[in-house]
Amino acid sequence: MRLATIRTASGTRAVRIDAGTAVETGESDLRGLLERPDWAAHAANAAGPVHPLDGLDYAPLVPSPEKIICVGLNYRDHILEMGNQPPSYPTVFAKFPPALVGAYDDIELPAVSEQIDYEAELTVVIGRPVRHANVEEAAAAIAGYTILNDVSVRDWQTRTKQFLQGKTFQHSTPLGPVLVTPDELPAGGLAISTALDGEVMQQSTTAELVFGPVDLVRYLSTILTLNPGDVIATGTPGGVGHARKPPRYLTDGATLVTAIAGIGECRNVCRAETIDPEKLETVLTNGKPA
Amino acid sequence: MRLATIRTASGTRAVRIDAGTAVETGESDLRGLLERPDWAAHAANAAGPVHPLDGLDYAPLVPSPEKIICVGLNYRDHILEMGNQPPSYPTVFAKFPPALVGAYDDIELPAVSEQIDYEAELTVVIGRPVRHANVEEAAAAIAGYTILNDVSVRDWQTRTKQFLQGKTFQHSTPLGPVLVTPDELPAGGLAISTALDGEVMQQSTTAELVFGPVDLVRYLSTILTLNPGDVIATGTPGGVGHARKPPRYLTDGATLVTAIAGIGECRNVCRAETIDPEKLETVLTNGKPA
Repeated sequence: MRLATIRTASGTRAVRIDAGTAVETGESDLRGLLERPDWAAHAANAAGPVHPLDGLDYAPLVPSPEKIICVGLNYRDHILEMGNQPPSYPTVFAKFPPALVGAYDDIELPAVSEQIDYEAELTVVIGRPVRHANVEEAAAAIAGYTILNDVSVRDWQTRTKQFLQGKTFQHSTPLGPVLVTPDELPAGGLAISTALDGEVMQQSTTAELVFGPVDLVRYLSTILTLNPGDVIATGTPGGVGHARKPPRYLTDGATLVTAIAGIGECRNVCRAETIDPEKLETVLTNGKPA
Repeated sequence: MRLATIRTASGTRAVRIDAGTAVETGESDLRGLLERPDWAAHAANAAGPVHPLDGLDYAPLVPSPEKIICVGLNYRDHILEMGNQPPSYPTVFAKFPPALVGAYDDIELPAVSEQIDYEAELTVVIGRPVRHANVEEAAAAIAGYTILNDVSVRDWQTRTKQFLQGKTFQHSTPLGPVLVTPDELPAGGLAISTALDGEVMQQSTTAELVFGPVDLVRYLSTILTLNPGDVIATGTPGGVGHARKPPRYLTDGATLVTAIAGIGECRNVCRAETIDPEKLETVLTNGKPA
């Protein structure tokens, strides 16, 4: 089953995606749907208003998750090629909901940086509350998978030792277009890639993940309860722009395509942030060192 | 004006705290109240159901903020005593809402750590949406101030370079008891302290902040829109348990009092997490290195 959150004239709606159509499930977004204990049966049987797929306006798959948890340093091939050892623990950091955009929305490039980079990531969406999960409980808590591009403002990410400030810029992070339930995906790895203006920049397989989705749910559930609609982005393979020589960053007008086999793709145009000229001095001042 | 979120038999309620009584404002929590553009006048004029202050059950001041942003390395005296230079940029990281507890609730000590530490922090609550704020806009976006103890699971915090996993354990972080509007606080520094079983462990003044509340709102608003109910914890002074010789951690039954002059105090008893014996092996396995 494939699920999404779409924008309509009267607000967002959770939908089931069928061949050629999207059928409303009755909830205002995917988080609302997943908060129903019977979400899978409810969505499978939903028979609400129908929309043609052509021209569907995809919102961020989960517009307002309680948590967006991102994992770093999690592709074995990339770790080894950099001469590092696989880590003992996942590296985790956060984003906040205003960072999200839909799968076909513009990505906003902030005026305060020229080092904005891409990171394709297989992403888990949680489907039931879970704490202290064993392997079976962790697997059962995964509603499905989607795509996130962990767009990163590298100079802000490295201003201090904590990544957060470079990871949560407004309207930077595509999430979607759909959730695909685990039964519809093949066992083993999924091909994952980023293309920038048609040029393939990242290309790997999720078989290279050090900590897989079930491992991550188990680990994170030791810390706190994961809740329906929570988003866990599992890390990115090699090939990011910041590590290239010369570096390659996102620029105004560039098209970024983030694809995972079996799920689909996000296709986003990068657009320089528009700032009211009266605000420009404030923006630049605020971004400067103390 | 003083505002809070309390628990009642029929759910949480936003209240105005008067001398001796709490008066419901009509919203289910402080975030709901602050999302009203007229929140200050609405709360000042509220005349809903009245509760005696004695026996009031305080929920986390904002039970479900969109963002909990924490600042590190932000007390000048502590930075200098450690032989470091004041930073050029604030260090920021996140917590997630399930980490929060009320001002008089128990703090849960997770079974997977024996290095759980305290960090008293002056905390800003946002009262209106703000992006790219200048000094005046930043000041106007601050609804008021409260207290947070950024309880930190040090061994998890330092498992990787990113703090998040040690900062967001379930039911670790007192927030409250009240929001105090800026007009009720004196200009200049506020005394801030932590006491553990009656022994003063941290004692400083918020005059030592490197980046003050208005600076932080300006800086963070460069990154993304701050929204009503967002929480910004401004960092902690010296004296944390992990840096003591020998270290001093939170233990089962200990009482932690976090106080800021003009606001009040959080008073929390620390309690070891209760785990179903059938779950214990899973919990300990999940917390181990891969």
